[in-house]
Parts: sequence; structure tokens; C-alpha cells
Amino acid sequence: MKNRTIFILLMTMLISVVGNAQNKDVEAYRFVDHLLKKMSLKEKVGQMTQISIEAFLKTDEKGNVINPHELDLNKLAVAIKEYKVGSILNVGGTAQTRENWQHLITQIQEMALSQHLKIPMLYGIDAIHGNGYTLGSILFPQEIALAASFNPLLAKEASQVSAYETRASFIPWVFSPVLGIGRQPLWPRVWETFGEDPLVVSEMGTAMIDGFQGNDMANKYNVAACMKHYMGYSMPLSGHDRTPAWIPERELREYFLPPFKAAVDAGALTVMINSAELNGVPVHADKHVVTDILKGELGFKGFAVSDWQDIQYLYLRHHVAVDDKDAVRIAINAGIDMSMVPLDYTFSQDLLTLVKEGKVSMNRINDAVRRILYVKYKLGLFQQPLGNAGDYPLFGGKQHQELNYSIASECITLLKNNAHILPLKRGVKILVTGPCANTMRSLDGGWSRLWQGTNSDETEKDKHTILEAMQQTFGHENITYAPGVTFDKEEDISDAVAKAKDADVIVLCVGESSYTENPGNINDLTISAPQIALAKALSKTGKPIVMVLTEGRPRVVSAIEPFTSAVLDAFYLGNQGGDIIANTLIGKINPSGKMPYTYPRYTNSLMNYYRKYTEDTTFDTAAGYHPQWEFGYGLSYTTFKYSNLQLNSDKLASNKPIKVSVDVSNTGDREGKESVLMYVSDLVASITPEVKRLRGFEKIDLKPGETQTIHFIITKDKLSFINNDLKRVTEPGKFIVRIADLKAEFSY
Amino acid sequence: MKNRTIFILLMTMLISVVGNAQNKDVEAYRFVDHLLKKMSLKEKVGQMTQISIEAFLKTDEKGNVINPHELDLNKLAVAIKEYKVGSILNVGGTAQTRENWQHLITQIQEMALSQHLKIPMLYGIDAIHGNGYTLGSILFPQEIALAASFNPLLAKEASQVSAYETRASFIPWVFSPVLGIGRQPLWPRVWETFGEDPLVVSEMGTAMIDGFQGNDMANKYNVAACMKHYMGYSMPLSGHDRTPAWIPERELREYFLPPFKAAVDAGALTVMINSAELNGVPVHADKHVVTDILKGELGFKGFAVSDWQDIQYLYLRHHVAVDDKDAVRIAINAGIDMSMVPLDYTFSQDLLTLVKEGKVSMNRINDAVRRILYVKYKLGLFQQPLGNAGDYPLFGGKQHQELNYSIASECITLLKNNAHILPLKRGVKILVTGPCANTMRSLDGGWSRLWQGTNSDETEKDKHTILEAMQQTFGHENITYAPGVTFDKEEDISDAVAKAKDADVIVLCVGESSYTENPGNINDLTISAPQIALAKALSKTGKPIVMVLTEGRPRVVSAIEPFTSAVLDAFYLGNQGGDIIANTLIGKINPSGKMPYTYPRYTNSLMNYYRKYTEDTTFDTAAGYHPQWEFGYGLSYTTFKYSNLQLNSDKLASNKPIKVSVDVSNTGDREGKESVLMYVSDLVASITPEVKRLRGFEKIDLKPGETQTIHFIITKDKLSFINNDLKRVTEPGKFIVRIADLKAEFSY
Repeated sequence: MKNRTIFILLMTMLISVVGNAQNKDVEAYRFVDHLLKKMSLKEKVGQMTQISIEAFLKTDEKGNVINPHELDLNKLAVAIKEYKVGSILNVGGTAQTRENWQHLITQIQEMALSQHLKIPMLYGIDAIHGNGYTLGSILFPQEIALAASFNPLLAKEASQVSAYETRASFIPWVFSPVLGIGRQPLWPRVWETFGEDPLVVSEMGTAMIDGFQGNDMANKYNVAACMKHYMGYSMPLSGHDRTPAWIPERELREYFLPPFKAAVDAGALTVMINSAELNGVPVHADKHVVTDILKGELGFKGFAVSDWQDIQYLYLRHHVAVDDKDAVRIAINAGIDMSMVPLDYTFSQDLLTLVKEGKVSMNRINDAVRRILYVKYKLGLFQQPLGNAGDYPLFGGKQHQELNYSIASECITLLKNNAHILPLKRGVKILVTGPCANTMRSLDGGWSRLWQGTNSDETEKDKHTILEAMQQTFGHENITYAPGVTFDKEEDISDAVAKAKDADVIVLCVGESSYTENPGNINDLTISAPQIALAKALSKTGKPIVMVLTEGRPRVVSAIEPFTSAVLDAFYLGNQGGDIIANTLIGKINPSGKMPYTYPRYTNSLMNYYRKYTEDTTFDTAAGYHPQWEFGYGLSYTTFKYSNLQLNSDKLASNKPIKVSVDVSNTGDREGKESVLMYVSDLVASITPEVKRLRGFEKIDLKPGETQTIHFIITKDKLSFINNDLKRVTEPGKFIVRIADLKAEFSY
Repeated sequence: MKNRTIFILLMTMLISVVGNAQNKDVEAYRFVDHLLKKMSLKEKVGQMTQISIEAFLKTDEKGNVINPHELDLNKLAVAIKEYKVGSILNVGGTAQTRENWQHLITQIQEMALSQHLKIPMLYGIDAIHGNGYTLGSILFPQEIALAASFNPLLAKEASQVSAYETRASFIPWVFSPVLGIGRQPLWPRVWETFGEDPLVVSEMGTAMIDGFQGNDMANKYNVAACMKHYMGYSMPLSGHDRTPAWIPERELREYFLPPFKAAVDAGALTVMINSAELNGVPVHADKHVVTDILKGELGFKGFAVSDWQDIQYLYLRHHVAVDDKDAVRIAINAGIDMSMVPLDYTFSQDLLTLVKEGKVSMNRINDAVRRILYVKYKLGLFQQPLGNAGDYPLFGGKQHQELNYSIASECITLLKNNAHILPLKRGVKILVTGPCANTMRSLDGGWSRLWQGTNSDETEKDKHTILEAMQQTFGHENITYAPGVTFDKEEDISDAVAKAKDADVIVLCVGESSYTENPGNINDLTISAPQIALAKALSKTGKPIVMVLTEGRPRVVSAIEPFTSAVLDAFYLGNQGGDIIANTLIGKINPSGKMPYTYPRYTNSLMNYYRKYTEDTTFDTAAGYHPQWEFGYGLSYTTFKYSNLQLNSDKLASNKPIKVSVDVSNTGDREGKESVLMYVSDLVASITPEVKRLRGFEKIDLKPGETQTIHFIITKDKLSFINNDLKRVTEPGKFIVRIADLKAEFSY
């Protein structure tokens, strides 16, 4: 086919796709608007109300929720019949079996549908790395680990399974993915992000949304995704969760907005709002951010749900409202469509009053409800409010587990490998030690059956800790174990030291336990003191140390790293983490992850890789950018050689993108995967340019001796940035493309 | 007199004062504009050029500057005769005698005045805590220590002496005060600020400007002040000097702008620009910040000088200019009036070309030169370009030294005093130890004879280190000394431990040496490890430890503090620091300083006192606001009781301020000074209100048993803040006044 023919064909397809989508939307809005006309104000307000299932669960005489969960149908009736509640969320305590979820959701949905307008309930759940609140579901690598794979396809595959296993519990809506930029390493949710780079976050985030939503959210294997947490949540000044961020609007648009824009363009239909304040204004009160930018500029057509109790918190925590009712007025007028109340009906009562008083317009109410009903329609809930239990034979099964293994195997990251100590030889005697060695909590992290992931060692006992996997992989007879320390306390370091003397190599498992949100706040990024003490004591044995990091954020390990011969970063790899680590140590897996963030060397030197020239070392001998491991850094058991970087032109024009190609060869003796990262440096700009920015990446698989040519396209848009007038521009000038250690200059 | 009569009298006086000022300005501008008309473009560009004296100093055969400095008149002639240079700055290496300064300045001024327009040279110098570049001058407490006094009168007195001693060197212009907000404790110049509170910075800053400039800058005892560093320099994200700051414009106007506004209103006539970038734009390139806000909104009539080489750095470091010439175009058009080039004539050449090419307008040139000539006129340089050597008999003498002692004695801050261990009794045996014990560097800090303060032990050897002062005060026979460690290295801790065994008490002198700017960058706020090791070793002796901190920033001491019985913070007290510390320890001085910043307990928990409610501990058990010592905290050897907090009304109105009164009693048995701090909490606001803000402070002196009633006025303006539309507003609602542990509510 000639180019012209292809072009016409593509345009025809495009028109057809857009046309179909538009037709479907016309249909959806016809349905929604018809329904809206029949709704009372109370019913509308009910649709905007989201209550936690905790409010409806039966409790024992002590007030504790009965497990397995049972609904108190009288309490549920208050929500559905009296308050016309349109959405329920989450889990009242521990994870439930799939069967119980099906039962609970069926009861809820049947009651909702028994109301005269038959509006289905929208149930939402924190399915963060798999549908963790259903027992037996797959627990995938957390987002930060997926980011290390630099392979968006894996994020898509993981979220496809997560969607499948969530729908298997008859739940159609997940509060995922997080699209924040993980550039504040202290923040206790940095592991819930795709790391520090806006392009990686955008690509991984949209892949994840694609996996959740598919082409048709009404499909029984798809769910609605939820963009979190719009916007600027991830970079609190203090590093503590839900504390103030200072992000000027230019930087907000340059780094933080693009992933949300990409997600809206990819069809994400719900968004959860940042609980914290941005530049002095709680985002739940910020019309500019929620309404003008998200709904206006980005054209977001879905709805915005508050985070947990965040409308009330405008009064209780933020002090921008004089009472609950004032908080509702501020939030709804700012553009919040649904309130995660979550445990009472004050929201409904207040909103009704506010509308009657004219303080919230009916237009605003109709807009919010229209958005919510639109999402329910797109989810097919009006047609198919419940699933069929038999439709999900793969739930938690071998196929999904194998996929999880294959995904996680691309996330593990090799950071150091002196004298090729790794892979370890079969038959070597290994001491496995450290507080992360024998716990699933350090593999799974938070949002694993429980909010804080505290019971993973019970719920996941059929999975392997690092120790168990090591025993299985290297043979029990070759493994000794001594925890040495807990995270907080030196327990028995001498036992570890004694056992090290009989070992050929020490596998030192350090890092963090599971946590999220406020309970994960820290005051010092340095890895805990007992772990440093253990490492120092072991270093004196003279035995080589392989450090395995399992952690949610890059805890500073510069006090340990010099003693180590090798370092593996396993982040939170999920339920297969133990096996992945053991199989990497033995060489069955060739690691291919790369750092998704800058790993700091010092607690008070927290720059990210797209630093400015003034942050570089050139002008400053005392400090500068000296991270422990740079963003994009990662080793392999094989070696890759980059050559032949070519640009098809050294002049970029608006209508003439530059084609970049580079040859990557596997020059080692085993197959390996490599993430090829293309950076561009803008040499001069009206906004101080970053030293470099990632503008493209691709992951490839190369057999020994194989060479592959990788292609990237540099368009004008890829080099654009937000200028001081908050406009996205590409300024003429010189640029340098950098791939590995190769570089080439071009101009625009 | 009746009120009306007083009013008329006051109005008449006011009109007269304003009228005189206006008349003087009319006169000044008449003179300046007349001169301007006679100037060639080259002469105008010359006025905008500032060169370092280093460029004109004679060197030996190795290229080293000859000391005492001698001018190479041929080189000087290139500057003055060829390039018509209008300003020279600083010192080429070490401090000079007053006599040599007089000689050098006379030579320079005579050559300048021999030119046909007879425009005097404007010489500027870094007189930061006294005129440090003239040998024998008084070295006062640094700004952070002055702030701890909470007594603006002291700042004024110090800067009056500094002005006197600078004019004594025939220099009429000082690069002081720093008006940045010191809320980033890592920043290596935090000690050059008046701490974290905008009100304190404003009050101390304007007092200092008042001291420098007096009522008439042309007076032989006054100099022109320079507001530094406009704006947002003090809070780099990374903590490293001259690295990017993210300060949204709302926060910039709320916290960072007010001291500059106060200083402009107080008549400050020169400003030095922030070297770093603010929100992606180097401030030297930011027309909005330099021209619109400073010269437009604030009505600043003086001139803006760049910081060292900062126009060239727009090209060399910031990458916003394509070359030197482009950098000049950007900076001059942004509103820079004078370029601290500082070592070549590229600026002059480039600016000439740019004007000829029409890229910089003659209007901009005339505006800049008019501002510079206006300042020269106000300084009386056209009438009196040089001083008379005999006019300064007090230079460095007893009277000034005693004033320095009296000022510094109000700065030292007592932070802990278990069981009233302090003051120490005469005759006790004392071990003086630690790396700060016997060096003037830890008392004087940077900008002391040399940029980094590195030779203070030579130049100030007639002053007392802590050890020397302790020997003098407590008697040599009662003092033993063992340094124990250096800042970087454990030297001989066992010697210190051994000597501690024979002592009754240990005075542990820890903190920092001298530094400023980039060489002072750190990667960890924790006090250096050898000092912790020394403290731990000494703690095992069971002897009580009095920790004396001499440091430029609040290095985290939570690893040491629990071992101490008492803590004194001496910041950088200047040349009398040793005596002040010894006399405080013996009880001759009753300490009255209070923390000018939040002293952090943890390296990664760096909040300031005017935190938001969401940063408080209420919502967060894992972390929150738990500083080592809070802003405003400080003890005394006597005790103060606060009572009878009264408001004359509980309703504030625009035309009806609230009068607050509180009784403060000295309930102890010795005279003492107390800083009375009035905080106000806004309970609800459209911008999340701070937990509290300082809205007034006053320092008083009370004899034992004495009670004084302190009055504050709360106006509507004092409660105003910058809202989300960047407008200064006072919103109606409830407020709480807090003084010590008393509080009272009112509404507006």
C-alpha cells in the first residue's frame, strides 16, 4: 500500500472509532438525562453520597465486626431507602472470600434495585496491587516495582488480572492507579507511585488504566479505574502524609499534571482528590484545580470522589470551613461530585439544606449526578448489575500466578555485582539474615488484605518468604537463618555473626515492613539503626554480603552499601517476591529492572534526576547530585553495548519529527532484557532546563550475541515545557539526545 | 492638649516631614536628571557596571595579591577612564587596616572625580556583622543571634556602629541586611537571616536599615543599606545554596515579600538580587519579581544590583541565555540596574551593543542610571566623596566593644537547665571540651575578615575563645581542656574522658565552624558524628554536661541532648562570644534569648512553628510537629509569670483595633529580661490558617518582684493574609490571642 492509501484507511478507521464512541456517549447521556429528570433532589444527593460498608456490618456484643462479614439489612436500608445512597466502598476490616463478597454485593445491589428508579449501586474498592481485599486473589508487585520494569505492558497485564479478580467479587470499581510523581522519598506512599519521572508515570499509568477498563468497561472482566490523587499529593514539604505541598502552578503543570492528562485522554472516568492542601488551599476546596483544570481544560467527563472523610476534614483538619455544612458547600462548589463521607449521613442532610438555601445550585447537583450516572452506565450496571459467579474460573489460579511471577521477574533490580558474585553457585552455604528475610509483609507492603498489610504472614502463608524460597531454591541443607535484628531493635546479632562464619555468603535482607499513609511517616530516611548495626557486625566476618532490599521507599543505605558485594532491590514485589529473589540469586532470572527514582545517598540531599544545572556538582564541591543510584540505573547478568546512535536529521521542525535509532547488542553470554532509555537535554530555555529529561523508553529482550535497532521519534511536542506564562511551548535552540553513553546534537 | 489639637499638630508635622522629603527628592532628581542629560551612553553603561577591587590590585611575581593591598593605577584607569565604571566592591583577599582602606578609597575616588563629569565612585562592601573587612572593627553577633534577642533596638545599635566603622574606612555602602526567611535549616546561610518568622525579620531588618541609613544617608556616620537577597533565596528545595526554590506566589507574598516591603517603606535604597531560580526562573531574569513587584508594587526607588557574576551565570549556570550578551539583555530588561560583573568588562561591551541593536531601550538605561545616581546623591557623595580620617575616634574602641558585649548578652539563649545547674558556682572544677571550645571561628562565623571566616583565630587573637574566657572567668586553676574531637574526626576522646573524671562539670562545646554559601552545604543536618561520639563517651562518666552550641544552623542534637543537664545556644555571637558564654555560665549574665527558628529534633522533619493544623500531631501519632525546641522557646535564671490577659473588646472592627494587655511578673530572685510574644490564631480562613502566627513582640527588663503591663494593638491589617487571588485580606471570623500559656478569643 502506498502511504496515501494507508493514511485514508487510518483516517476512516479513526472516524469510525470516534463516531462509535460518540454514538455510545449520545446513547449514554440520553439514558442518564432521562433518568435524571425523574429523580428527586434527595435521590440526586444520595447518588453523590458514598458510605463505607463498615456502617452496615453486623457486630458482636463487643461491637467488633463479625467475620465473615454479614450485612445488617436494617442499617443498609437506612442508607439505600432513606438516604438513596449511590455508592458504597471498601471493606470493614479484614479481607473476605470471593463467595462472601458475591453474597454481600448481591444483597446490596438487590436492595438498591428494589427502589423505584432501579439505580444500581456503585461499589468501589482499594484494589491497589491486585484485588487485595478478596482472599486468594493475586498480589502483584506494587506500582513502584512495576515502574522499575520500564515495561508498561506488564502494568496492563497486572491490572487486567486485577480487574478480572475484582469483577469476580462482583465489584466494578477500583481506586487505582496512583498517578502522583514519586519525587519525595520520605512520603510513606512513594511505593504506590510509578516513581519520579512524569513520562514513566504517564505511560505506566495509562497502561494500567487500559488494563482495568479495556475497550468497554461494561465487559464482565473490566472495571472502572480511579486516578489518584488529583493533584500534587505526592510531594509534601515535610515528607509526612497529607501535609502541605508547595508546588507552583508552573511546576504543577510541568511535572504533576501530565499523567492525569494522559489518563483522562486514555478514558479514565473517575478521579479521587488529594486529601492535602496545595499552596494553602485544600484541593477538595480548590475550584481552579478540580473544576477549571480537570473538568474544563482536560475535558474530564467522569466524576470526582473525595478521599476518606475529606469533605468533613475541610472543617475538622484544614480549618477552611466553619462547620460540616460549610465544608460541603465549599467542596461541592469546588467540583467534588461524590463524598466519601464515609460513616454518617451528615453530607446528605447538609447538601439538601444547601441546595434549598441556594448555596449550591441545582446545576451543580445535576452536573455531579449526571457524571456519576454516566459512569454507572458505562460500567453496564444498569444492564448487568451483578456478575455470574461461574464466569471467573481463573481467579487466583495457576495462570494468574504464573503471570504474576513473570511480571515480577522484570521488576527486580540489580544495583551492584562486584566481581560477578551473582548469580550464586548451587551448593554454596548461605546465611539468610535480616528483618525482611522471613516475612511476607516486606514483600507485599500495604494494601494487602489489610490497609497496613499487617496480617500478610497469616493470609499469605502458602506463599514464600525470602527465607522459604531460598531454602527451596538452594536446598534446606545449604541455608542457615538468623534474623539478627528487628526493624527497631538489635535482637541477636551475635547469632547471625556466628552463623556467618560457617557460610560462604551472606544474604542480608533489609529494608522496611508494610505500611501506608500516616502510620508510615518517618523522621529520618536512613535505614533503621539496628539494620546498620547488623550489617556492620557481619562485615567484620569478611564473608561477602549480598544485600537484598525490600522496601517502600529508598531508605538511605550508604552506611551499609560499602560493605556489600552485591545489591538487589526488590521493592515490594508482591506474593511471588520470595521466589523471584531466590531465583534471581541463583541465576534463573536475569534481572532487568532499573531505578524508577533517584536513590539518595544522604538523608538531606534529595534531588531527582531531572535536576537543574545549578543542582549539579559542577559548581559545588561540598554537595550536589551524588545519589546512591541514579534514576534509570540497573545491571544485568549479561552485558549490553550501545552503538550507532543515529538521527535522520539534525533539524527538527513542526512537521518533521526526528527519527532516532540506536543499536543495542547483548555482548554477554546469556539472554537478557534491557530497558533502553532516551533522554533529551535542552541546552537553553526561558525556564532553566533540566540537565536531562526522559523522552522515550522501550524494553527489549536480546539473546546472547543478538543486536536490535531501537527507534524513537522526537516530535516538537516531546520537547515542550510549561513557560512562565503557563503555556506549553517548544523554544528554538539546540538539544542533545542521550542514550546510554552515546549522544547526538540537533536543533529546532 | 485635646486630642484634636494633637491631631492637627501631628498632621502638620507629618506634612512638613513628607514635604521636606519630597523637596529633597525633587532636588535630587533635578540634580540627577541634569547630570543624566550630559552623559554619553558609555558613561551610563559605566555607572551600571560594578567591578571587584581584585581586578585592580597589585600582585607579586606569582600572581598573588600583595598585602597590604596596593592599587595598580593603570588597571584602575582602564575601569574608570575607559569603561567609566561607577561602582567597585569588596576586598581582594584579606581584611585591610582602616588606614589602607582610606588610602585605597581616596585613590579610587580621586581618579573617578578627575573625569569630566566628576561622578563619584560608589564603593560597596560585605559588612555583614560589623565592617569585617577592616581590621580591628567590631564583629557583632550575626543576624540569627540578633534575632534571638527579640530586641530590634540592638539590631539598630549594631548597624549604627557598623555604619560608623564602615564610613571610617571611607566606604558608604554595605551589603546588609539579609531579609530572607530562615525556614530551611540546611541552607548554609540560615545564620545570615533573622530566623523563620516574617514579623521578626521585618522588625529586625528595618531596625538594621534604620541603624545603617539613619535619617540622612549623607551623614558621615551613615551608609546605604542593601536588602538581600530579593527574593525567595532562603528556601532552596535541596537545602543547598543557590539551588532552585519552589515558592508559589501566594506563599512568596505571604511569608517572603513582607520584610522587603517593610524595608522599602523604611527607605532602603539598594537591593541585591537572589542568585538562584525561583519556580524555574532565575530571579535575575524575572521581570515580574524585580520590576513589577519590587519597583512597581512596592514603589522601590533605589537600584537593584546583581549578586556576584550573576548576569553571566544566566548563561553559564542557569542556561536561560545563549551567551554573555544574551544574559545581559535578559537581566537588564528584567530590571537589574547594576551588574556585579565582577572581573571583566564584557558587561559594558555587551550592553553597549544591545542598546545600539535596540534590544535594550534607552529608557531602561536611563531608568537604571537615574536610580544609581539618585542613591549616590542621597549618600552625599557628590558633596562629600571622601571622609575625614579624624572623624572616627570610636572605631573599634572600648565604647563600641562594650556595646557589642551588651548586645550579645541579650542574644545567648538558655534551652535547658535541669535542677538549676546553671549558673555554675565559682570554684567548681570544669572540663572544657569539644571542637568549638578554643576557636574564634565558631564564635564569629563567616564574613569575618575573610569570606569563610577561616582566619579568625589569627585576626582575632586578642579576643577570647570560650576556653580563654572560661579560664579568665572561673580561674585557670579550675579549668581543664581537652578538645576530644575535631568536627570531622575523633582525636582523643579518652583524654577528654580521663579529664572529666577530675571535673565537677563538663562544658561541652559543639556545633559548627565558620562557613557561608556553597562551601557550607551539607547533606545531613545531624551534628557531626565525632561530636556525638564525644558526648556519648563523656555521658558515661556520670558528670553533668552543659552543652554550649555555637553554630550557624540548628544541627540536630537529639543524640546528645538527653545526656545533658543544661544547654546554651550561642549561635555566632561575634567577638565577645567567649566572654558572653563564660559570664552566662557563671551567672553574671542572665540569658534572655529565645529561639528565632524551630530547632528540629529529626533530620527529616523540618517544619516551622507557623505550621498548618494538618502538620500538627493531632492527626498523626507517627510524626508531626515535635521539634527539639520550638520557635520562641528560651529560659532565664529567673522566672516570669504571665497573668491578667485582657482585651478591651472581643470585637475587632476596621476602625476599632483591639488593645491587648498582659501582666508579666518577675517571680524569681534576680533581674531578668523577657521577650513577650503575642501570637494570634485564625480559626477558619479560606487559606488554611497556621496554627499560630506571631503578631507582636516586646522585650522588657524586670527586677525581682517587679510586674509590668505590656500592651499590644491588634489591627485588622495585622490579621490579614494573602488569599488565593493574591489579594491581602482579613476575613471575618474568630481569632485567639495567645501570650505564654494565656489565651483570649475575639472576633472580626
